[in-house]
Amino acid sequence: MKIEKITKIRHSLAHLLAMAVLLKYPETKLAIGPAIDNGFYYDFEFPDGVSPSTDDLKDLQKTMRKLAGKGLTFDEKEITAKEAREMFASQPYKLELISEFVKEGEKLTTYTSGDFTDLCKGGHTESTKEIDPKAFKLTHIAGAYWKGDEKNKMLTRIYGLAFETPKELEEYIAMQEEAKKRDHRKLGKELDLFTFSDVVGKGLPLWTERGATIRRVLERFIVDEEIRRGYKHVITPDIASIELYKKSGHYPYYKDSMYAPIIIDDEEFMLRPMSCPHHYELYLRKPHSYRELPIRYAEIAKLYRYEQSGELSGLIRARAFSLADSHIICTGEKQAKEEIAGALDLIEFAANKFGLSMGKDYWYRLSLGDISDDKKYFKDDNAWKGAENILRDVLKERGADFIEAKKEAAFYGPKIDIQMRNVNGKEDTAFTVQYDFVGAKRFILSYVNNKNKESECVVIHRSSIGAIERIVAFLIEHYAGAFPVWLSPIQVKIIPIADVHNKYAEEIFSKLLNSDIRAEIDLSNETFGKKIREAKIQKTPYFLVIGDEEVSSKTVTVESRDDGKVGAMTVDEFIANIQKETK
Amino acid sequence: MKIEKITKIRHSLAHLLAMAVLLKYPETKLAIGPAIDNGFYYDFEFPDGVSPSTDDLKDLQKTMRKLAGKGLTFDEKEITAKEAREMFASQPYKLELISEFVKEGEKLTTYTSGDFTDLCKGGHTESTKEIDPKAFKLTHIAGAYWKGDEKNKMLTRIYGLAFETPKELEEYIAMQEEAKKRDHRKLGKELDLFTFSDVVGKGLPLWTERGATIRRVLERFIVDEEIRRGYKHVITPDIASIELYKKSGHYPYYKDSMYAPIIIDDEEFMLRPMSCPHHYELYLRKPHSYRELPIRYAEIAKLYRYEQSGELSGLIRARAFSLADSHIICTGEKQAKEEIAGALDLIEFAANKFGLSMGKDYWYRLSLGDISDDKKYFKDDNAWKGAENILRDVLKERGADFIEAKKEAAFYGPKIDIQMRNVNGKEDTAFTVQYDFVGAKRFILSYVNNKNKESECVVIHRSSIGAIERIVAFLIEHYAGAFPVWLSPIQVKIIPIADVHNKYAEEIFSKLLNSDIRAEIDLSNETFGKKIREAKIQKTPYFLVIGDEEVSSKTVTVESRDDGKVGAMTVDEFIANIQKETK
Repeated sequence: MKIEKITKIRHSLAHLLAMAVLLKYPETKLAIGPAIDNGFYYDFEFPDGVSPSTDDLKDLQKTMRKLAGKGLTFDEKEITAKEAREMFASQPYKLELISEFVKEGEKLTTYTSGDFTDLCKGGHTESTKEIDPKAFKLTHIAGAYWKGDEKNKMLTRIYGLAFETPKELEEYIAMQEEAKKRDHRKLGKELDLFTFSDVVGKGLPLWTERGATIRRVLERFIVDEEIRRGYKHVITPDIASIELYKKSGHYPYYKDSMYAPIIIDDEEFMLRPMSCPHHYELYLRKPHSYRELPIRYAEIAKLYRYEQSGELSGLIRARAFSLADSHIICTGEKQAKEEIAGALDLIEFAANKFGLSMGKDYWYRLSLGDISDDKKYFKDDNAWKGAENILRDVLKERGADFIEAKKEAAFYGPKIDIQMRNVNGKEDTAFTVQYDFVGAKRFILSYVNNKNKESECVVIHRSSIGAIERIVAFLIEHYAGAFPVWLSPIQVKIIPIADVHNKYAEEIFSKLLNSDIRAEIDLSNETFGKKIREAKIQKTPYFLVIGDEEVSSKTVTVESRDDGKVGAMTVDEFIANIQKETK
Repeated sequence: MKIEKITKIRHSLAHLLAMAVLLKYPETKLAIGPAIDNGFYYDFEFPDGVSPSTDDLKDLQKTMRKLAGKGLTFDEKEITAKEAREMFASQPYKLELISEFVKEGEKLTTYTSGDFTDLCKGGHTESTKEIDPKAFKLTHIAGAYWKGDEKNKMLTRIYGLAFETPKELEEYIAMQEEAKKRDHRKLGKELDLFTFSDVVGKGLPLWTERGATIRRVLERFIVDEEIRRGYKHVITPDIASIELYKKSGHYPYYKDSMYAPIIIDDEEFMLRPMSCPHHYELYLRKPHSYRELPIRYAEIAKLYRYEQSGELSGLIRARAFSLADSHIICTGEKQAKEEIAGALDLIEFAANKFGLSMGKDYWYRLSLGDISDDKKYFKDDNAWKGAENILRDVLKERGADFIEAKKEAAFYGPKIDIQMRNVNGKEDTAFTVQYDFVGAKRFILSYVNNKNKESECVVIHRSSIGAIERIVAFLIEHYAGAFPVWLSPIQVKIIPIADVHNKYAEEIFSKLLNSDIRAEIDLSNETFGKKIREAKIQKTPYFLVIGDEEVSSKTVTVESRDDGKVGAMTVDEFIANIQKETK
């Protein structure tokens, strides 16, 4: 396996860190020190009473630079278990690793640089001369359990960033600063969009009126657009008998991500982890003719999936979320193919509305199954092949760029995932269109065809704008909180200069409300300067300044967040402008 | 206690029914036979092999009329337990009752009419001559467990209707027929608004696109109206830690109507039975100034309350429902009073929009507590007195008629209930405005007053249009399924006369959809007559007939559900008309 140069640099730096630590604190016990995505870390058990500070990190970094400058090499040697145990007799974590490697029949190797030798599987630079001493930086210290198991001892982990050039390091740090500023959890608090409460519970956001406004605008936008495109918006229960998920076949695949049952009158009810079987039951309420199909059931479906408390993260990983979900019940492959294309049209339409462009902000991934894995994937080789070809054809026919990924399908069929990267660079599936050749069989979803015969349906699962919580989090970060007017929780802030202007300001306010414009008026005791600053922090798209001149000329003076001073106009003109902008 | 004449008639008829049954089936065992709201029943254990039919009911009724005509009396006699046990030796249910009465120290009485004697506590007419033989009717047979306990034997219950005059009986039967036609469960199926699935679970409706459309229109209507009135619409989780309901003090009062907990990582989470503590936690996210109050948090809040499976009834009694809920956090009594009045304004506005009139369709009830009942009501005599006076004053000041009802308050304070009667004549609380002097104390909801001091809030709970499920059920019955245009799931049905007209019809259809008018097109193979009949069954407000003439003159011929033939016009004219009507 070829190891990239940057990975070798990062791993070599972990060795230098261990050397620097032993020079400063010779009694330290070493655990492991791998390369990671943006640098490296090493886990240590420091001697009693030693707890390195930020200043100590600077010290260690200085030592590492000196060591790097020496042009050290990493000399490999294969040793026996006995030799290893002698060599690392004072290093309990290394001893534990030695026993493990022996048990698994792996060979034991050491790498020596100067007078430091580490038990290691290799992957270093030829010489530490290859490390640019200005292209790495020790950043912070964190606790980490030995082997990531909370039953083990808590060790001290020292993190470092490392790149090939100082420029790359600087760019990465700048990106991280920007990501921190854009972090939806930080902006969510600053803009007062949502909050959490310990007594309500972890992973369960409470949306303020501002955050709820963004949700409402988004939900109405997608519901109305879907209805215009022939979707039937339905409402099904958020809980259901466990029997439903056994009938659908989801239960064995999903039971670990489902919550514990709620016992009602000796029956087990589950918080639903998906809405497909609910929509299938709705379909089954009456017989259907081929003339009715495709039937596109859609719902903003509240779903519940288990997340460990350590995995929870703002709106991105919550314990409940609302999916802009749909199940399209089709007559067969031909119709399914058309519907997949239609779903992608809708997804591109919505992405465009958010100002996202394909290739740059999102890209297609064709997520395939693996016919050799019967446990993870429903066994039907021909169905997999057929469905994968259909999805590939749809993407090719629309001339879309896409990558293919093995083993990323659902258990019931392959899918097209719309991938995005968040501000921290992490890739995630934002939206998805899935081919399902299992659901219709299990639920016996059928229709009467044009020869008056019962015929089996095909189901397409799709989400148009994904989970509302996740897309809101994504959009907060994408816009850095400066939402376009149509999505802004407050579109207009009215700022009277002094108390004497309050009355006229309130007239303007009520005119805006009656035109369904989301306005707020600042009647606080604060100075004019502070009111303006507050409106800017809130990233309100427009603010209207009301002073003597505006009162006497019956106008408002408009300032725009994005374009600065716009000037004076009547309130009716302003209303007409903003209505045009949000149309 | 004075017993009303009609109750005496009904109870006397139960005796006559038992007499008639014993004449026909002498071996029958008698249980009990009380008067009920609209008549009477008697529970029997028939001899093996006997199972009365509808014809038998007619027979029994004939016998009862004959017996009534005889002018029988009901002669009271007090007897000892020993005498009673001898007299009813062959009647096991009576023997059981005798033992119970003896245990509770009650006296034993019998009433004799002719040669029939029943163990009975009295309440009969002087003579059966007072019974109008044309004013009662045996209606049906049902199973009923002895003492209502499913562990006991299943008996046979015979029901009868009974009134003072034949006219009253006829009117009652006619009302019942009408109610049956309007029953939201029946119309919900006929109009395809919602359905139930055994595998999803009892009491959990699945809303079709038609039913969901009514919900969406209603929800958007009330959310938008509330926002215009200064409510802040928020979104809070449908589950929360059990600690939240312990903190709020709801738990001991509500635990029997809450579902069993869901265990997540050793914590107990509950499906929420109310949203108040959620909104309080939202309020607590930051400090508040008197300038911000009142804060009117509103939410279409999904709530879960336990209902026994036998109590479930369509949308009226479901296991989950969505309440148009609000909690108004006020600076004190004065503001609370204004907010109560404002909430009643909104309720009357919404009721008016539904075409309901005060006094006829709904009325006010002032629901009071009982300071002598510390178990049911929070102990604070002064607070109860003060709050009850405020609510009474608000009703008086707006000149509203209202009744007062003891022991109908919430545990945290008195309330104003808006009462309605459903088509079956059953009274129910549709909307409510509640004064709460407990919640703010328990959650320490406070604000900084104009002297810069912390001050305790007062909370008003209110629902504007109640539970969405319940109001939809009520409106289905109120309109008998013929919804006004703004609420109709399908506003316009397009009916081409023959296949050749389909193309033009589809043009019209897409024009309507693009104007956000809820239209449907009938492209089925059915005859024109059948298409028209189907549109009428669906109670669609408008249908557009498309034939040769319409195609050539580029018009549509409009028929109205309520006004019959409207005539020909261009599609743009029709769109303008319907938009004007739904504004």
